Formats: sequence, C-alpha cells, structure tokens
Amino acid sequence: MKRVRFRDPSGSVRTGQWLEREGETAGDGGVLTFADREYDPADVDILPPVDPSKIVCIGRNYADHADEMGSEVPDRPLLFLKPPNAVASHGSDVRLPEGKDRIDYEAELGVVIGQQCRNVDQSEAMEYVDGFTCVVDLSNRDDQRKEQNWVRGKAFDNAAPLGPVVADPEHVPADASIDLWLNGENRQSSTREHLIFSIPELIAEITSYLTLEPGDVIATGTPEGVGPLSDGDTVTVEIGGVGRLEHTVTVPN
Amino acid sequence: MKRVRFRDPSGSVRTGQWLEREGETAGDGGVLTFADREYDPADVDILPPVDPSKIVCIGRNYADHADEMGSEVPDRPLLFLKPPNAVASHGSDVRLPEGKDRIDYEAELGVVIGQQCRNVDQSEAMEYVDGFTCVVDLSNRDDQRKEQNWVRGKAFDNAAPLGPVVADPEHVPADASIDLWLNGENRQSSTREHLIFSIPELIAEITSYLTLEPGDVIATGTPEGVGPLSDGDTVTVEIGGVGRLEHTVTVPN
Repeated sequence: MKRVRFRDPSGSVRTGQWLEREGETAGDGGVLTFADREYDPADVDILPPVDPSKIVCIGRNYADHADEMGSEVPDRPLLFLKPPNAVASHGSDVRLPEGKDRIDYEAELGVVIGQQCRNVDQSEAMEYVDGFTCVVDLSNRDDQRKEQNWVRGKAFDNAAPLGPVVADPEHVPADASIDLWLNGENRQSSTREHLIFSIPELIAEITSYLTLEPGDVIATGTPEGVGPLSDGDTVTVEIGGVGRLEHTVTVPN
Repeated sequence: MKRVRFRDPSGSVRTGQWLEREGETAGDGGVLTFADREYDPADVDILPPVDPSKIVCIGRNYADHADEMGSEVPDRPLLFLKPPNAVASHGSDVRLPEGKDRIDYEAELGVVIGQQCRNVDQSEAMEYVDGFTCVVDLSNRDDQRKEQNWVRGKAFDNAAPLGPVVADPEHVPADASIDLWLNGENRQSSTREHLIFSIPELIAEITSYLTLEPGDVIATGTPEGVGPLSDGDTVTVEIGGVGRLEHTVTVPN
C-alpha cells in the first residue's frame, strides 16, 4: 500500500491510497482513493504524508558523497535534526532563505517510524518501520559552513520536502534506486545498497539516545551529485518502490 | 498569571494557575487552581507547561560561561535544537544516558512563544512572547565533544526539564535572577541582564530562518557555574518572577 494524505476539493483532509496503473508511479500519474471515492491527483492538494515530531538526518552516509564534500566517512552516524517547520509537500513551491550564495538539493530515502520506540535492537528494528518515503534535504551551505550546529544551514522552513506517499516496506527492495533530476536532468543516481550505516543500525543508534515517535522520519543520507539550486528550478526525486516527489523552488533576491 | 498544566487526582489534564501566597513561589508552596477548585501541588502530577514542536537553544550567551568553557563569544547567536522527546517535567526523576563520564546541568531562562511567527522585527518581538519558564539544558559532554551537531550531546530524552509554570512577561523583570542549586548548594547565579543577545535579538534572528509555533521554547543560554551530575542529585532552578523548577536525576551504570 502507498498511503497518501490530501485535502480533497471540499477541503477535508483525507488519508487514502495512491493507486498506480501500468507504467505509472505515485507522484506521477495514478489515482487517489479514499473510502469508495476516487480522486485525480491534479484535483487535490497533496499534503506531507506524515507530521513528524522530528526528522533525524544522517550526514555522510554514502562514501561517494563524503568524497565529493571532501569529508571523511564518520566512524558512527553523523546525526542532525530538522524540526517540523522544515516539512514541505509534494507539488509545492519551496521558498528558500534569502540572499544565500548556495543552497543545494540532496535526495534521500526517508524511513517513517510506525510505533514509539527506544533502545531498539538492530535485529528488531524493521518492526518499527511503517514505510518509506522520498526526502529532499535542502542545505544552505552559506550558513552550514559557518555554524557548529546546522540550524540555519539545515533546519530552515521547508528544508525537508517529503512524500508524496509512505510505501509499505515490502514494496521497497534492498537495492531500491534513488534518483534526482534537476529540471529533468539526472543529477543523483544510487541505490539503497550503498548506505554505509544500514537502516537497522541507524534505528539502533538513534534510539539509544532519543525516543522515536510514530510519523518521525529518518533521512538516511544522500549519494554523490548534490548541487546548487536557482530560482524556478524543479526538483524531482524518485525512489524505486516508493514514488516520485516533485517540487519547485523560489529563491528571493 | 502563572499558568500550570497538571493531571488531577481523577486523571484529567487541567490547565490552571499556580497561586502564590506570601513567601511562596510557584514550584515551592502555593496552590493550584482550575475553575472553582483548588489543588495541593503535592496531590497532582505537574506536567510540562507547554508541548513545544521544538526548543531552540542558544549556546554561549553569557560571557562568563563562554569563558569557563574556553570558548569565544560568538558574533551571532549559536543555535542548536532539542526536539520534543527532550521535554521533562517539574518533580520528575530524569534518567540520563548510560555510561557517560560527564553530564552537566545548565540553568536557563526559557521564552515561551505565544503565536506563530516568522521574520519578526526586534521592535515587535515581545508581542509574540507568551511568557517565561525555567529550563535545564542537560548536556552530555562525552558526546557533545565528539559530534558536529549536538544530537547525542543535547537532544537525548529528557534533556530539557522545564516548568513548572509559564509566567506572564510583566512578572519577570529585566534583571530577573537566574539561580541553580545542586543538592541545595548554589552553583549558578546571574541575571537576565547578562544575556549577550537579548530576547528580541534572538527572536528576530531565529525567525529569519525558522517559523516559531505557539508553545515553542527558546532556551536563552546559561551563565557560569555549570558542572557534572551524579546519581541521585537534585537540581533546582529558580528564576525571579517565574518560579522554581526541581527534578532529580538517575544515572544508570
């Protein structure tokens, strides 16, 4: 199942399913269903599929991306946080912070937590996973380079477009593709297999310090190919078995 | 008014007032009221007075504390985040992360936001302040020293005891005292006047990047005198015009 949340033409918020027909993928074609009704995705407002109390993000979790940033691969997961104000939705126009020289896209596989959990053993970690979603980790390099904690750099409003669906784990293969297109041109292309720290390792490490809540998201890191955004750009992320997240950006002067 | 949230003997969650009689302070004596009923604070569970979507914390915002940590005073506010899992309540026994050499107390004045706000001008910032509370910024130095972003160091469960009340801004003078006692011995003693970045400056800076929500808390930084906690310690913070926050700590081996 691919769960989607949307505001229907009457203004009601619905949690339904995104059904894909042959050759379609959630976020690009298909049809939304709730109860016995069907909706054309173009006729509704797609909302973020979850309301996380926090997004726990992982830095440098692909060796090729650590390389391109001139960074070492860390000996334990590099953690940082995006609070709820960072969430943005599929189909939105994300307004970026003003007056910055470089704000980058980063495509990531998002893990959605299904149950409150703490001190989870790796062997049981996947039991707490509700599903997977697409995340863009928007990164304001101007400030990120200058601050100890990446708050201005990573936690600004709408710094985490995510969605459009939460796909059940069984839909998402161990070698699921992770791709990003900038204005239709492929810029990032990797697979879930290249994660340095696996999802069970991440859940075990995070929950040894923090309780995860239902709807919380772990953004598992980005592969190589990150780059800067310009006013009017369209960002498209597709994860195999999940779907396609797309948004535009506005860069105020 | 000093607003308090508590679970009454019937299990209902109430938002009432903490009334102080002569010589008493909220958190140490006084009486709770809701509607036409009065409650002895000893008969109820005091809850955190707010459910923040995030706590935005300020590092090195007192020159004497920057000194004792061997750090420079920053040229703009040093920001870091504590997510909702960090909240702990007045009267609780806070279980700290296991196996750490040094976890410190840090007493802080907490600013509670009253209305959603973004891009706030300093001259209007106080209009968005609902009131003030006491915060303890519990800090796991073992991990804080080793990580880029202070997640294990500062965002662990219960790393932000706060409360017991939200006091209206007019109760809290510009030179309000900020004191911390460890097991009854005074360890931190300063005033709100010594903040390097003022509350309006902090609100303007934070909201130039992040939307603040009602109930969000800004922890404005700690003065000198921070130090380590041991199993069974009692931490007491009193802020002039606000009240007294007290909790114990358990340090697992």
